[in-house]
Amino acid sequence: MNHKDWVRGQLEGLSKSLGFRYVPREEIENRLTRLRKGMEKEEMEAFLVVQKMDCYYLSGTTQDGLLFVPLEGKPLLMVRREVERARVESPLEEVLGFKSTRELPSLIHEHWGRLPQTLGLELDVLPVRDYFRYQDLFPDTRFMDASPIIRDIRKIKSPFEIELMRVAGDIGKKVYQEAKEILKEGMTEIEFGGLLEAAAKRYGHEGLLRVRSLNYEAYTWHVLSGPSGGIVSQSDSPMGGLGLSPAFPVGASLRVMRAHEPILVDFGTCYHGYQVDETRMFSIGEMDKKLIDAYNACREIHDAVLEETRPGADCKAIFQKTLRLAEQLGYSENYLGLPGLQTRFIAHGVGLELNEFPFLAQGQSYPLEEGMTFAVEPKIVFPGEGSVGLENTVVVTQDGYEILTPLEQDIFQV
Amino acid sequence: MNHKDWVRGQLEGLSKSLGFRYVPREEIENRLTRLRKGMEKEEMEAFLVVQKMDCYYLSGTTQDGLLFVPLEGKPLLMVRREVERARVESPLEEVLGFKSTRELPSLIHEHWGRLPQTLGLELDVLPVRDYFRYQDLFPDTRFMDASPIIRDIRKIKSPFEIELMRVAGDIGKKVYQEAKEILKEGMTEIEFGGLLEAAAKRYGHEGLLRVRSLNYEAYTWHVLSGPSGGIVSQSDSPMGGLGLSPAFPVGASLRVMRAHEPILVDFGTCYHGYQVDETRMFSIGEMDKKLIDAYNACREIHDAVLEETRPGADCKAIFQKTLRLAEQLGYSENYLGLPGLQTRFIAHGVGLELNEFPFLAQGQSYPLEEGMTFAVEPKIVFPGEGSVGLENTVVVTQDGYEILTPLEQDIFQV
Repeated sequence: MNHKDWVRGQLEGLSKSLGFRYVPREEIENRLTRLRKGMEKEEMEAFLVVQKMDCYYLSGTTQDGLLFVPLEGKPLLMVRREVERARVESPLEEVLGFKSTRELPSLIHEHWGRLPQTLGLELDVLPVRDYFRYQDLFPDTRFMDASPIIRDIRKIKSPFEIELMRVAGDIGKKVYQEAKEILKEGMTEIEFGGLLEAAAKRYGHEGLLRVRSLNYEAYTWHVLSGPSGGIVSQSDSPMGGLGLSPAFPVGASLRVMRAHEPILVDFGTCYHGYQVDETRMFSIGEMDKKLIDAYNACREIHDAVLEETRPGADCKAIFQKTLRLAEQLGYSENYLGLPGLQTRFIAHGVGLELNEFPFLAQGQSYPLEEGMTFAVEPKIVFPGEGSVGLENTVVVTQDGYEILTPLEQDIFQV
Repeated sequence: MNHKDWVRGQLEGLSKSLGFRYVPREEIENRLTRLRKGMEKEEMEAFLVVQKMDCYYLSGTTQDGLLFVPLEGKPLLMVRREVERARVESPLEEVLGFKSTRELPSLIHEHWGRLPQTLGLELDVLPVRDYFRYQDLFPDTRFMDASPIIRDIRKIKSPFEIELMRVAGDIGKKVYQEAKEILKEGMTEIEFGGLLEAAAKRYGHEGLLRVRSLNYEAYTWHVLSGPSGGIVSQSDSPMGGLGLSPAFPVGASLRVMRAHEPILVDFGTCYHGYQVDETRMFSIGEMDKKLIDAYNACREIHDAVLEETRPGADCKAIFQKTLRLAEQLGYSENYLGLPGLQTRFIAHGVGLELNEFPFLAQGQSYPLEEGMTFAVEPKIVFPGEGSVGLENTVVVTQDGYEILTPLEQDIFQV
């Protein structure tokens, strides 16, 4: 048996029984059609996709490689490692192996008959050194930024993608339900966070959360108890937490959790690359009435966002509505963070990355569309005491929304 | 109490009791002195540090910001979020808050009296769009690539850094020792991996492993059992594993582990940003003699690398010695991967990132130096059957080496 047949046999034997879902051909074709509309509008002759999640979206594989998508003609997937696995995973017809970036111009020329005059690259993430290399390799090509196009089409999810997000939501639900059995007084934040993550992995959660950014990192162990919930840190979040050191100054710490404290658990789950984001409150014994009231205010704000959620609603207007509601409820000083350090969004798009469009935020005046998915997360912070909040991931439907993280919203009191 | 005092009080109260170790002033000063030697050689007037781990290395904080280091004059740390926390964490004297990148030229001008004529940036990771922005903001400045300089000084670890890596190694040791109690027949790879990660977090492991790369991702749940160990995937590793889906096609899968199979556990631990990398073999009942023999060959190759490890030894020569030894031992077809898919390194530098210098590899002909830290990982792959391997992280000492991951090297058989 040759290597190709062996790999195919191994992968099919091992992965099919474990529920691997490959991206269907029609799904890829639809995405390419939408991508090309954007390329045509920008007069972009071809797009060289370099970023892993964009490659996955357009080819069905995250094997290490590059995808060449011409406006006219077949796409060419060029794979460094491992080409046979990419052939199993991707429904694209043209999949070639390569070793060095030097080979790209000749591979593209051979496949497409010439080199493009204009070529899109994801300039929002592509490192400068790689860009210089492409300039050397394609001296007669004008480079353009393709990231607005790919981010724009990725913001609308297909039924296939929404189904994967439902599965992620289902993993989250199981984890939160087990969490009540896991949480014990005297446990540290990070121990609790680690056990939640372990439970999620048992159900197939992929562990790494993904963000489109050089420096921003996502993680699941965002467990903040008592005063930890009042600590702001590097992230654009109402509360960062203490973390484990100056090198990882966010999320759970080695702080021991005590009875009656608010314990905020903001936990993302990931299935086949698709993420959902979810927050629930926990406490050991009852929390202070002040915190329970604030949590109920978060529920009210959350529900007010969903009330407005339908195609056509303006993202900025929804955000501003929550500011007014928070003020009416008496939380303008605590809503979305400490005064002077408040975040300016009530929801962020979520899918293959945690910072997709849309953002329901200040300065983001555009309409919601059917198929958009986002995480709504009203949070209220009391310095020195802690934070409360609620978060669900939803998809915009034809006439409203569907919650992709269906789970009871009462405080999980143990 | 004003906000600044409140944050300081909270952070000191909460974090000191939990063993936060801030980078000492002399440590930062030594690093800056070494950095400036490299800048002087390249005639670089100033360096604008944008990447999180480089910022941490030179300032002691990973708060979201940028560090301006002039060849002459004091560094200026500019922090988007959260400046008060950065002031607690960093021993640098000049720490300012800012909101928009637009402010950078005026902040630098005010601090330093003028703008630099030549400015270094980390062009190996900086996104193109940010680069264009800096070109607009500093129209009279010539940009240079500072990444070779910062990567060069980071490759030599100080006693302070080595001590943090020893603590990381100690966490790893505890995890591997607990692993024997955790591993059960019928468990899936990912369940085992998740529980190991949970154990590590309980001891303060930071969870996120870091790699300097756009697309390369690191993770701890690299648990490969039986035939999973023969699957090659996107990573530059002898074996990638099956993973959980085409979106995360590496590491542990939902495959149920069975008795007598080789179970390879490649687990990195991280303390205060400093990582060590470590691999041990597990089995439920005894493995096949063929695999045990191959594991013993890995030990022999591992020991042969350490035998050569001292200042002055050539990295490429050590790698090539292992190729000859693998051949003598009868494993040339299986050493470091399947034929045609073999990796070309026996060790990679490790510290704040998992792909630091040195690389003991083909094409890397330079001498080892005192203070270099690297992970040695001989691995042998049998298609369809599995993989075996051993990995330890070591530091080069004045006349040899010290193992930073001290732990028994026998197969962990349960």
